[in-house]
This record gives sequence, C-alpha cells and structure tokens, in this order.
Amino acid sequence: MSVSRPSGSGHNSLSELRIDQERLWRRHMEMAEIGALDGGNCRLAMTPEDGRARDLFRSWCEKAGLTVRIDRAGNMFAIRPGTDMTAPMIVTGSHLDTQPHGGRFDGISGVLTALEVVETLNNANVTTTAPIAVVNWTNEEGVQFAPGLMGSSWFVGRLSDDDVMGALSRDGRTFEAAARDLGYLGAERPSDFAIGAYYELHIEQGPILENSRCQIGVVESVQGLRWLDVAVTGMDAHAGTTPMDQRQDSLQASARILVAVNELGRQFAPDARVSVGYLKTHTDGASTIAGRTDFVIDIRHPETRVLDELTEQCQRLCAREARTQNCTADVTLRISVEPGEFDRDCVAKVETAAKALGYPFMRMTSGALHDASNMTTIVPSVMVFVPCKDGISHNVNESAEPHDLAAGCNVLLRAVLASAK
Amino acid sequence: MSVSRPSGSGHNSLSELRIDQERLWRRHMEMAEIGALDGGNCRLAMTPEDGRARDLFRSWCEKAGLTVRIDRAGNMFAIRPGTDMTAPMIVTGSHLDTQPHGGRFDGISGVLTALEVVETLNNANVTTTAPIAVVNWTNEEGVQFAPGLMGSSWFVGRLSDDDVMGALSRDGRTFEAAARDLGYLGAERPSDFAIGAYYELHIEQGPILENSRCQIGVVESVQGLRWLDVAVTGMDAHAGTTPMDQRQDSLQASARILVAVNELGRQFAPDARVSVGYLKTHTDGASTIAGRTDFVIDIRHPETRVLDELTEQCQRLCAREARTQNCTADVTLRISVEPGEFDRDCVAKVETAAKALGYPFMRMTSGALHDASNMTTIVPSVMVFVPCKDGISHNVNESAEPHDLAAGCNVLLRAVLASAK
Repeated sequence: MSVSRPSGSGHNSLSELRIDQERLWRRHMEMAEIGALDGGNCRLAMTPEDGRARDLFRSWCEKAGLTVRIDRAGNMFAIRPGTDMTAPMIVTGSHLDTQPHGGRFDGISGVLTALEVVETLNNANVTTTAPIAVVNWTNEEGVQFAPGLMGSSWFVGRLSDDDVMGALSRDGRTFEAAARDLGYLGAERPSDFAIGAYYELHIEQGPILENSRCQIGVVESVQGLRWLDVAVTGMDAHAGTTPMDQRQDSLQASARILVAVNELGRQFAPDARVSVGYLKTHTDGASTIAGRTDFVIDIRHPETRVLDELTEQCQRLCAREARTQNCTADVTLRISVEPGEFDRDCVAKVETAAKALGYPFMRMTSGALHDASNMTTIVPSVMVFVPCKDGISHNVNESAEPHDLAAGCNVLLRAVLASAK
Repeated sequence: MSVSRPSGSGHNSLSELRIDQERLWRRHMEMAEIGALDGGNCRLAMTPEDGRARDLFRSWCEKAGLTVRIDRAGNMFAIRPGTDMTAPMIVTGSHLDTQPHGGRFDGISGVLTALEVVETLNNANVTTTAPIAVVNWTNEEGVQFAPGLMGSSWFVGRLSDDDVMGALSRDGRTFEAAARDLGYLGAERPSDFAIGAYYELHIEQGPILENSRCQIGVVESVQGLRWLDVAVTGMDAHAGTTPMDQRQDSLQASARILVAVNELGRQFAPDARVSVGYLKTHTDGASTIAGRTDFVIDIRHPETRVLDELTEQCQRLCAREARTQNCTADVTLRISVEPGEFDRDCVAKVETAAKALGYPFMRMTSGALHDASNMTTIVPSVMVFVPCKDGISHNVNESAEPHDLAAGCNVLLRAVLASAK
C-alpha cells in the first residue's frame, strides 16, 4: 500500500489523506523487540522492559516534534499544538504494557496508530485548531501492579494518589519507587490537562469482526461486569469407599453450576456472556472426592438491569445445584463495573469515517474493559476496533494484519481530524 | 471394658477368650506419637518416622516372644510358632506407613489388632497347630515411593526386585538405600515363607457401616478400578469478547462430562462408583475461557464386565459432550486393576465369628485397594472392616472408636484361631 499524500500545503485534499501503513507496521515490529517472547511480548508495567518501550515511544514523539508531558501516574501525553492553544486537546492512544505472555497489538496498536495520525498530519502540513495528544496509559494490564486500568482510573478519579503510589509489585516494590527509578514519575495532575474528546483504537480481542468479515468495529458501548466468587463446600471422601448417594461432592456440584450458568447465559444471547475460567479444587487426588471447590463466575452485559438479573439468577442457581449434592455454595460479589456508553457524536464521527473510506464496518459493544471505559466517564469518548486473528488475545499468538491496522488508523485519522479542527 | 481371660491353661473356654481393648487402644496412641501431626500422622514409607514406627513395633513383637523376619522389600513378619512347624503360617496384619496428612488407624489398626490377637493367645497360653505371623507391609500408601501396595505387590510377584530397589523417593533416593539406612532391608524372599491364609482388619474408610449401624464388615471382595486420563482441548479466549456460541470452552465441556459420568455411575447403583476428584485447567484467569482442561475419571465396580461397560460408556460420553462445546476429548486408560474375590471359607470364618460374638455385621465389598487385594491372588484371604467416623480417611481427622476396634479384633482372633488350629 502506498501513502496518499496531498501535494503542497493545501487542505482541499484532506479527504485523500492516508496514513503510512508501512511505517505503522515497522513501528509495531520495532516495539515488539522490547521484551520479546515466543513471538509475543512481556512488558509488565514499570519494569525495565516497560521503561525501554516508553523511551522508544518518547524518542519517536520527540522526533515528530511533540512535547511529552508525564503525570504522577506515569501516563505519557505527547502533544501536537493546535492553532488555538486554549482549545481542549483531542486525546488518542492506549497502552504499551502487556500481559506476561501477551501479544504485539493489544494496547500497542492504539498508541502507534495515534502516533501515526500525528505523523501523517505533520507530513501533510495539516494544522488543527485543537491540540492533539498521543497518550500511553500506565499499567492497563494490572499484572505487575493491581488493579488494571491503573493510569486511566487515577486520571478520572477512580483511584487516589495513595492507591497508585502505594501499590505493590509482585516483588514487593511500590509503584512510586519503580516509576521514579525508570524516570516516569511525573508531577502533573489531571487538572493540568483540558481534554475535549478521547479516541482509542484497539484490536477487538474477539472473533466478531473476523466472522462478520468487517474491517472496522464502531464501538458504541462497553459491557458491564460482575465477578462472583463462589466457594462450594462438601466433604473430602474416598472415591472408592463412599457410595455415590452418600457424597458431598463439591466438584460435582460445581460442574452442575457451570452447566447451569452456561445455559443461563445462552438464554440472554447474543449480548450476555456468563463464563467460568477459574476453578480450583482444594484436593487434587484422583481418588478423593473434593470437599471444597472455588471458582469465579464472570458475567457481562451492556445493560445494568440485565447484569443485576443475571447476578441474582447465578446466586440462586449456585444454591440450588449445590443442594442437589448435599453441599453449600457461598457466593460473594467481588467486582462490579457498570456498563459504559460512548459518546453519540464521537460514535457518529467514527462511523462516518469508516463509511467514507469504504471499509466494511459494524456497530458493536466492547466485551473487554479498556482505558476508554474510564475516559468516557469524564469526556466524550469512543473506540475503534480492528480484527485480530481467531479472536486470540492475551496470548503470544495474538495477530493482526497490516492492512486492517492501516484501515483502523485511517478511520482514527478522519475522526480525530473531525474533532480537532 | 475388662479382659475376659480363661483361667489356667484350659482351652475349653476358648469361646470366652477376648482381646484387651485397653492395651489395643494404648498401643494405637503410642504409635500415633511417631510422626504426630495435627491429631493425625505423617509417616511416609522408609523415612525416619517409619523407621521409628518399625522399631517400636519390633520391640513389642520381641517382648511378646515373636521372631521378626524381614524380606527384601522390608516387609516385617513377626512369627509365633505353631505346634506343627511344617504347617503353613496364618498371616494377619496391614501397614504402619501413613498418608502425608494421614490418620491414626488406616493400616495401623490392622497391624496392632494382629499383634493383640497374638498377645491374647500368649496370655491365655493358647497354642495353635499352625504358626501365626503378624505382618507389617512396606509402603502401602505409595507416597514416598511409587506405586502403593509396594511390599505386598512385590511379595505376590506383581513387582520385580528392580521395581522395588530402584524406586526413587520424592527427594531422589532409591528405596534400597533408604531401607538399608533404616536397617529394614532384609534378605528373605517370598519363597522362604509358607502361608496358609491371610487376614486383614482395616477401618472401612467409608460411611456404610456407620450408616447401617453395623460394627463389623465381612468383606467378600474388592472393587476393580479403572483410571481414565481425560484431556479436553478447546481454545483460550477472552470471556468478555467471545460470544457464547463461538467458544471452544474446555472447562464447560468438562463440566458437562462430569455431570454425565455422575449420572452414569448412579445408573449402576449401588455398586458402581464413578468419580472425578482431580481436575485442572491450563489457564487460571477468571476472564479467560480455558483452552485445555485435564481430569481423571475414577471408575470402580466389583465386576470386570461392568467395569468394562462403564469404561466404554465414559469414553463415548467424553467425546459426545466435548463435541457439544466444539472441543475434543482425548481419553487414555492409565490404570486398570481387576476386582478381587476373597476366599469363601475365610469369609465364612469371619462371619461365623461376628455372629457368635453378637456384633451387628454385614457383608460388603471393599471400595479401596488393600494389601489383601494382592494376597488374595496367592492364598485364601479375607478382610474385616470396622467403622470410622463419617467415613473420613486419608485425613488427620480419621477417627475410630476403641470398642469398634476391639470388636473387630475379637472377630479377627476367632477367625485366625479357626484357621490356625
């Protein structure tokens, strides 16, 4: 693919402006060399690998003439001035940290497409009224420090200074010490930034776009989430000596619950997701009936009302199925995140761009939480999804195509331009 | 309870001969001081704790005038001579090693009731035609060295010398070195012992006697066993982003299999036991659909024909249920142990004794494997079960009542006497 660049400084051909797919891809591959791992990446937040990724990102930003500002949570804002310096800036980006066995695109593509938008504007000598900022949020993944979405949560006021500064890494260091050592503990606060809108491109991390043969997901909302911790208690017993009708088999009770929650989720298709991915027995002998089994039910839906209904039904069915095996189920709500709506006008800008560019697109809900889930609580926000192979993510085999990333980046370019000028 | 002891040396009151409940219980408590742990015991085979238990047992045997012989697998035979030294000896006993968090009765009660039988005969000056041997089998539990039932398996020819001598402990020592260091590597071989019959008392390790209000279990047979290793393969995916109908959820498939195998087992009630106690996912994130789940199906039944049928049906239903979740199930037969029948005449002797002594009793099948499962393949054998609280075993809370152990010991005394004289 070649770059379509307006000749001269004329802005009459803005509609023909295209990003540089080759440069965008090359930067993905260059970034992927830091913390490289089995084809994927390990760059946990505020580790030396994250530090090197930040340094590389900063060097690109500075070469592009951007001013890099860093706040107390280590969030990096690389700013391209607008003609009206009093106009609130249009922010776009994502995160550069990864899962321990993460991929080369989750988060990274959001930061690098944002930078590519700015470089494209630079090359075409396009000026905007509002400043444009490329953001790299700190610790989206929440692996090295908990919780995830740390930088953006702090930015929107969901986490306090103490929550962030005192957070302990898995090896017992504070966030504050780790960030200072890397040179990414800034002084700025959210009130130092005036923001007009927020755009975030991300790989879908699911199979919907691929299966629907769409290149662009216009994301209208983010699912809400409930996590139920379930502890099923029965009694350890010998599998050979205990008749089947005299057992208190917590694993059998849990199996029946898993089947029932799956059926419940399917009743609320296609929007509901009710899943169990974590399950552990307290015994692990093949001939021991497990007296205790713990698992987590992950419930997602775009509507609070349905989330509440699903949560209540899960609680009821846990008790019911446990009883059939003479067990008890203790159910605790551990996490509750309300659904997020994206801004109608921003959504329209993304859709208009996709349509104008002729990319096949669909409106959709984000199944995962993103930094945009935080930003939408304080400024008009939206996300752009691009396909990833087989929906695989949080995995070294995560894969996205250069032309899909370029399509998403072109959509981002148009939508950001529509907001910024 | 007092000891009923015939006066003088007359044998006309043999039917009034009773064991010493108080001495039997005291020895249980004294043995339980070795490797004591949270009310239970840890005495893994051929560790220093097992060595001290063996030393204590040997000192009791020698004080009782018995000759202690040790074979190459460390099995200890403490022999009380008969009047006919050419008569094959009547062997009774069990094992002194325990699970890592084991109880004070599993195995131990079989050895100590056997010793109590001999001491009762000594005190009453009762002579028998055949010699009587109290046996302590090596490494029944199979924790420190694999496999379990090691000493008796070697004795009946199921394990070779090399299997035993070269077996490696969890810390990498050979069985041979560990046994030699403790002074329990003997020179004798099975062919050095002529055996007429084998009796083994054991706690039931299940709830049947307690729930049936029986004090004595007359064990007719031992269930056969099949272990199926099942690996269910799907694909890791994000719980939020992957629609429920586009998943390959190995844990959901496994849950459906667990429910189906449980229902299958119940169809073959009351004799069948079909259980899953070991289950592990390869992922453990609450928001990750598990791409791989492994578990073991433990199948038990007293008849080979039914074991084969259950095994085949389990294989079929694994494939069927995996398919419903777009997964595959790989099923491997890891262990296959055929059911064991005990000797009709020995069973009758135990039943006659229980009846004569007025103890409530029932015929039953052993759900667990025991050293008697091996011995029954070479000599007439039988087991006597006594209740244990709530069927709990392989647990520091394992509990048995002194009067139940005494009842079992009195039955053992009569049955052994009936064989030995």
